[in-house]
Amino acid sequence: MFRKSIIPIVSSVSLGIGVLAGTKLERWIQPVNKERRFLPGFPSVLAVKLDDVGTPVQESGRKSSSVIPVNRSQEIMRFGFPGFDQVRTFDNYVMSYDRRNKNAHWVFEHLTPQNLSYDESVNRRNSEFREDTSIHQYFRSTNYDYRRTPYDKGHLAAAQNHRISQNALDQTFFLSNVSPQVGEGFNRGLWNNLEKYVRAVARNNKNVYVCTGPLYLPRLEADGKVYVKYEVIGQNHVAVPTHFFKVIVIENQIGQFELQSYVMPNQMLPADTPLKKYFWPLDAIERSAGFLLFDKIPRNMFHKINGVKR
Amino acid sequence: MFRKSIIPIVSSVSLGIGVLAGTKLERWIQPVNKERRFLPGFPSVLAVKLDDVGTPVQESGRKSSSVIPVNRSQEIMRFGFPGFDQVRTFDNYVMSYDRRNKNAHWVFEHLTPQNLSYDESVNRRNSEFREDTSIHQYFRSTNYDYRRTPYDKGHLAAAQNHRISQNALDQTFFLSNVSPQVGEGFNRGLWNNLEKYVRAVARNNKNVYVCTGPLYLPRLEADGKVYVKYEVIGQNHVAVPTHFFKVIVIENQIGQFELQSYVMPNQMLPADTPLKKYFWPLDAIERSAGFLLFDKIPRNMFHKINGVKR
Repeated sequence: MFRKSIIPIVSSVSLGIGVLAGTKLERWIQPVNKERRFLPGFPSVLAVKLDDVGTPVQESGRKSSSVIPVNRSQEIMRFGFPGFDQVRTFDNYVMSYDRRNKNAHWVFEHLTPQNLSYDESVNRRNSEFREDTSIHQYFRSTNYDYRRTPYDKGHLAAAQNHRISQNALDQTFFLSNVSPQVGEGFNRGLWNNLEKYVRAVARNNKNVYVCTGPLYLPRLEADGKVYVKYEVIGQNHVAVPTHFFKVIVIENQIGQFELQSYVMPNQMLPADTPLKKYFWPLDAIERSAGFLLFDKIPRNMFHKINGVKR
Repeated sequence: MFRKSIIPIVSSVSLGIGVLAGTKLERWIQPVNKERRFLPGFPSVLAVKLDDVGTPVQESGRKSSSVIPVNRSQEIMRFGFPGFDQVRTFDNYVMSYDRRNKNAHWVFEHLTPQNLSYDESVNRRNSEFREDTSIHQYFRSTNYDYRRTPYDKGHLAAAQNHRISQNALDQTFFLSNVSPQVGEGFNRGLWNNLEKYVRAVARNNKNVYVCTGPLYLPRLEADGKVYVKYEVIGQNHVAVPTHFFKVIVIENQIGQFELQSYVMPNQMLPADTPLKKYFWPLDAIERSAGFLLFDKIPRNMFHKINGVKR
C-alpha cells in the first residue's frame, strides 16, 4: 500500500507522441491529481502516465517527495535531449529506453551539492529491484532474467546519487535503469570508482550533468571482418552491453564548463587504473551510441575537455 | 537542379519532438511553402523538414508528385505507429531510423491496385542511391560503406512498389531505406519473391499495409550462452542484419482482414522454398524488433493469420 499523496510524484512523462497521433491513447492512464497532469518544461500536449510502483514499498522514514520541484526534468535536460525514443521522466532522473535490447539508451542526471545531501532515514535497504511496468511486457526486463547469470544488476543512474528522498532512490531500482554488469572489478570496482568520483566533483562544483548508458561496440575478428557481438540473458533476451559510457558536464562556481567522457569495457578491470585512462572522444561515443550528447553546448564553450585545457 | 514546385513534396515530417522541447530547433529548416508547413494527420506542433535531395536528379519524364495526397502518411500509418524514434515521412512511405545501427527500424507502405499503377516514363534507371542528408552525418550510411563488401544495397520499401511517380521512386533510393542484403538467393532471390508476392496480393485486394525491417536475432553458441552477433560494414559501421521481417495486413474487398508475418535469414535461400515456410508468429517479431505492429487492430479482427483461418 502507498499513500495517495505520493501517487502524482511517482509519475513519468511519456514523450511517445503516439498520444498525439491518437494511436496509443488507450495505454495511458490519467493521473489522479489533475493539477499535475502536465509537468512544466514539457509541452502540454504530452500525457503524464502513472508508474505502477509494482511491489508495495515501505513508508517508514520516507521524506515527502515534494522537495523535488516538478520542473526537475527541465533542469536535468538543460543541455539537450539525446533522443526521444521511449523517454521516461522520474523524480530525479530522465531515461530513454531501448525496447530492442531491454536496456536504457541513456539516463540523465543533474547533481549539485544540495541535491546530493540526504536524510539518514533514506536507505537503499528499503528499495528493491522491480520491473518497470510502464514498459510493455514484451520489452521489459525482469528479476528472473538475471537469475543464474554471473551479472550484477548494475544501476545506470547510480542509487547513491538519489538519496534526496526514499522515493527518488526507489525509482533508481526500476529494472529499466539497470543493465547486466560484471560485478567484481567493474560494478563493484572501477565503474563504482567513477561514480564516486562524479559525486565528489559534484560536491565541489555548481552543477554536474551526467549521461550514462550502454554501448555495443564492434570488434575486428580473425576473418578480417568487423562484428558487433554481445550476450543476451534470460527469457527476455536482455542485452549484456560490451561497454558503458558516462559523459559529464561540470559547471564550476564561476560558470566555466568542462566536459569529461568515459568508456569502460564491461569486464573486470585493474583496481588501481586511473580513471583518465578511460577517456574517450565524445564524438566516438555519439557515433556508437546513436545520439548526440549535450548538443546545446557549443563545443568551444568548454574550457577543458577530457583533462585538456583549450 | 530541381524545380521549386516539387520542393514541398520532397518533404519529411520529423516526429522527433526536440522541436517541442526547444532543444533542436536550429536543425530544422522551414519549408518554402508555408501552407504545407504542417501535414494533415500529424499534430500541428510537429515541424516539417525539407529533405536535401542530395545529388541532382533527372527531371525528364517526371510526373508531378502532386498526384499523391498530402495526408498520405496518415493513410499509410492507419493501424498504428510502431514507434516514434527518428520518424521520416516521404511521399509514399514512412520510416523510423535506427541511428545506432545505421539501418531503418522499420518502413511502412500502403499498397492498393491504384497506387501500384505507373507511368511507363517512371524508370528506376533515373534513380540513384544517395545519402539521406536529413540524418546527421554521424549516423548516416553512405555509398562508400558498401564498397568492397559482398552485400547488395537492399531496399526495405521496395522500389517497384513506388512507381506512381519518379519522385516517389527516387525517395526509395535514400540509403536510410537500404540495408546490406545478401544478393544472390536473397535480395535477388527469395526476398524478391516475397516482394513480388506482396504486390500480387495488393493488386487483388482493397488495401495492403506492409511493414518491413531488419532483425538482429540471438543465437545459442557452443559455450551454452546466447549471443546477438552481426557484421558491420564501412567507416560508419552499418549493421548487416541477421534477418529481415515483413508483416502485411490485407483488407479484402468485403472488409475482412488477414495478417501474414514473415522472417527470412539474410543469406542465400533455396529458390524453390514456399514463402509460407517463413511465417513467424507476430509477437516473436515484435519482441525481437522492439516495437508493436498494427496494434490498432484487435487480434481477433483477423479472419486469417499466417494462412490459418480463425
